[in-house]
Amino acid sequence: MPSPPRIIARGRHLNLLSRQGWEYATRPRIGGIVAVIALSGDGQIVLVEQYRPAVERNVLELPAGLAGDTSQTRGEPLVEAAKRELLEETGYTAARWQRLFDAFTSPGLTDESLTFFLATGLSRSGPGGGDASERITVHTVALHEVDAFIARRCRDGCAVDLKLHAGLRFAERVP
Amino acid sequence: MPSPPRIIARGRHLNLLSRQGWEYATRPRIGGIVAVIALSGDGQIVLVEQYRPAVERNVLELPAGLAGDTSQTRGEPLVEAAKRELLEETGYTAARWQRLFDAFTSPGLTDESLTFFLATGLSRSGPGGGDASERITVHTVALHEVDAFIARRCRDGCAVDLKLHAGLRFAERVP
Repeated sequence: MPSPPRIIARGRHLNLLSRQGWEYATRPRIGGIVAVIALSGDGQIVLVEQYRPAVERNVLELPAGLAGDTSQTRGEPLVEAAKRELLEETGYTAARWQRLFDAFTSPGLTDESLTFFLATGLSRSGPGGGDASERITVHTVALHEVDAFIARRCRDGCAVDLKLHAGLRFAERVP
Repeated sequence: MPSPPRIIARGRHLNLLSRQGWEYATRPRIGGIVAVIALSGDGQIVLVEQYRPAVERNVLELPAGLAGDTSQTRGEPLVEAAKRELLEETGYTAARWQRLFDAFTSPGLTDESLTFFLATGLSRSGPGGGDASERITVHTVALHEVDAFIARRCRDGCAVDLKLHAGLRFAERVP
């Protein structure tokens, strides 16, 4: 039986809610969140690295972003958000798109859910680097070297986003 | 240069903060969060399923929990929290513990970080099911059948936690 949450606080981008005594954060006014496993024909994966104020560090991630969060993108299909975020963040377009799976990022703390897409047949089509509010570094890394790459970046103070590990499990199974 | 966050709201378990104009949720007063990849000698992984009010669904997860969040556990080492959570949630103890890696669950929304442990040499030592506030179902699943198991539970309305996918990548590499 669904029960409406109680609003504890409204921020500009996040709200703090409580349901059945359980507190959690939510992003209102979005259509979903997409994450992209972008693989080149020669076995490389496209990663992004960006500074995250919440953790005061650079974080290695998959290309990802919010769907339908602006007046220009309201109602956009998730795959269109995935195409837009991949191009904005990395400069790549992809010939083939496949929706893979959904997962909750941290269901004890938020109702945030990610939808993962596999993007293959990559072409460089723009500069990447993110939108006006973002400063993103693109790393194109051979899958068989990705653990060594992550370890090296972590030694330099970078951190890792959970969705990168989750995405790698699927990337490594693509024939 | 670290900058202190601004407090937007304080809940009982979560606070909503802002740093450099970026909003995020945080759990004050904890020592960390642990997640356990628990593998039996015959190639099975121990999963938990529990109802999550934030998403109003049952979610398939790794055994996991907060470290040092009560007066009894204040200051406990992360590996002790991992042992406690595995026993509380699943009824298993493990002969061997190995700390694997840390990852941020969703660094655009929270500073929450998970520390993953590998637990092997499992023995059934208690009933499991979680503490007084939890109602947890334990699933022990052969690794080579875990994707089919997840698909089956999802068809029944269950959802999946991102840390399960991340943990499976590492579980599948254990010799």
